[in-house]
Amino acid sequence: MEKAINIAVDAMGGDKAPTEIIKGALKALEFEGVNVTLVGRKDVIEKELKRHSYDAVRVSTVHASEIVGMSETPTVVLKQKKDSSMMVGLRLLKEKNADAFVSAGNTGALLSGAMMVVGRLKGVERPALAVSMPTERGFSLIIDCGANMDAKPSYLKQFGEMGSIYMETVLNVEAPKIALANIGVEKEKGNALTKGAYEALSGVSGINFIGNIEARDIPRGCADVIICDAFTGNIILKYSEGFAKSFLAMMKRELMSSALSRFGAFIASGGFRAMKKKFNADEIGGAPFLGVSGVVVKAHGSSGSRAMRGAIAQCAAFVRNDFIEKLEFQILKGERNNGV
Amino acid sequence: MEKAINIAVDAMGGDKAPTEIIKGALKALEFEGVNVTLVGRKDVIEKELKRHSYDAVRVSTVHASEIVGMSETPTVVLKQKKDSSMMVGLRLLKEKNADAFVSAGNTGALLSGAMMVVGRLKGVERPALAVSMPTERGFSLIIDCGANMDAKPSYLKQFGEMGSIYMETVLNVEAPKIALANIGVEKEKGNALTKGAYEALSGVSGINFIGNIEARDIPRGCADVIICDAFTGNIILKYSEGFAKSFLAMMKRELMSSALSRFGAFIASGGFRAMKKKFNADEIGGAPFLGVSGVVVKAHGSSGSRAMRGAIAQCAAFVRNDFIEKLEFQILKGERNNGV
Repeated sequence: MEKAINIAVDAMGGDKAPTEIIKGALKALEFEGVNVTLVGRKDVIEKELKRHSYDAVRVSTVHASEIVGMSETPTVVLKQKKDSSMMVGLRLLKEKNADAFVSAGNTGALLSGAMMVVGRLKGVERPALAVSMPTERGFSLIIDCGANMDAKPSYLKQFGEMGSIYMETVLNVEAPKIALANIGVEKEKGNALTKGAYEALSGVSGINFIGNIEARDIPRGCADVIICDAFTGNIILKYSEGFAKSFLAMMKRELMSSALSRFGAFIASGGFRAMKKKFNADEIGGAPFLGVSGVVVKAHGSSGSRAMRGAIAQCAAFVRNDFIEKLEFQILKGERNNGV
Repeated sequence: MEKAINIAVDAMGGDKAPTEIIKGALKALEFEGVNVTLVGRKDVIEKELKRHSYDAVRVSTVHASEIVGMSETPTVVLKQKKDSSMMVGLRLLKEKNADAFVSAGNTGALLSGAMMVVGRLKGVERPALAVSMPTERGFSLIIDCGANMDAKPSYLKQFGEMGSIYMETVLNVEAPKIALANIGVEKEKGNALTKGAYEALSGVSGINFIGNIEARDIPRGCADVIICDAFTGNIILKYSEGFAKSFLAMMKRELMSSALSRFGAFIASGGFRAMKKKFNADEIGGAPFLGVSGVVVKAHGSSGSRAMRGAIAQCAAFVRNDFIEKLEFQILKGERNNGV
């Protein structure tokens, strides 16, 4: 039998921690060969665990006395909260006492913590957060939605490489289409960053770079991976979240303005609910932090048990498919080629 | 009687030129005190004019032998198409033979042409294109959606000033709320550009700067004017256009999946059409190019007669409310303050 994969879970991170997080971790035991290590205040975790029946052999706990607040700055967390569930979880990963770490807590602190504790993978200039966004054809991955607000073309080139390997090895997408978010499809379009990134991405062997994608084509799902700096990624992601809500609100108001369409909307309300669900972050998987030398996944802050179970499954897929090793190989290959 | 305002119209620019453009220009004669000058190939214009009855005293034509294609590069247009309807129209404005110029043609060429022919207003670092976007509460103006792909904080500061004056004097919005598009509301959030711009905008007297706005709050209509570089502006604008389409398509698919909701959707179809219309560029006014020393308005490329009529009315409001003079005053005041 294969050795079980051990996923460390930040039991104290996220809006619905600890109850929903722990419930989700236990649900993830449905997946064969997946064990979980719950990190956080032992008294709290044990109290929650008592409410469930589960295979105790597959669940361990590691005590951490502190909790990272959702609005604390990364600097404060790194310096003053060394015994927080987040920092302890990252150390478990670093010291190979866990195969992956997942947290629904403070994003900034998790990214900074992962950089400091787990460290960058050799050859990677900047790790990047990859977030899934629903599209007409399923979803696209936006890289970067993390900390690289002021990026360089060489970072974006590596985001393309990392995204391609992630899609291929973890999500089983063959020759994933990698596109650069830009203001036009022609290669000379854009700002200094995208012009440079276009050139850099064009030179990478082994990825399916399809060129620029205009923002209007992103929702159609024309690309599997969309590359951009974290500022642009944040704008796209947050805008889409807000727009979906406002669009439904405007539509509701529009439909309520006549008795007939009000009636129609009532009959069709199941369809509306399905749309709301589609754009509900809880339904979307966790966001991997690509480029650190360990599997770190950020689950959405509002993750419930279902989302947490999904994020843990995702962590297991990372480990099982040797993502880190494959990424290391590609990045080092790129470095060797540059050295010629 | 007040002197009539004379709006020069690019009769050859836009997807629906010349027919719809000319029809729209004649419709604009509904507005008292507004005359139009149609710029383009005289034979074509005269042929179109024959199909309508109108007050001939209020319509003049100026011949221009060439037409700017929608995909021609600005450089080519500026160098080789000096007798195009666009360039001739801009010269009419420059030489004060028109009070404003409106075109539904090639955006890049119009912006570059306006910069070259009409020129920047004294003290303005970079003119910016201001585009209206529908929101829950009406619409917000996004500045810049133009040519400043790589912006500086000082540009964004002036975009804020220009947007404020535009909203106040042309659209009669009292103390318009000016916000900076950013990844978080805290002033220390963002990239180098937005951090600098936050500080610069905070120091402007006489504008209602409400701080950062996260992309998720843009569709709710929390600000009257949203300030950003042209790259970000283009991403927001195009994304919103594409998202509205994809969202409706996804919703349709969702509703079609059951007979009941299909029936509901059929009954409610009027409401859906209204939503489509709301996000149809044709219904939204023209985009003023703020900061050039004359009134230049870009109508959407797909403008029909209704949109063109609206853009002409907008031009007239600019002129009537002394926008250029007020803007000049504010910008020079800012310069004087910096000089102290």
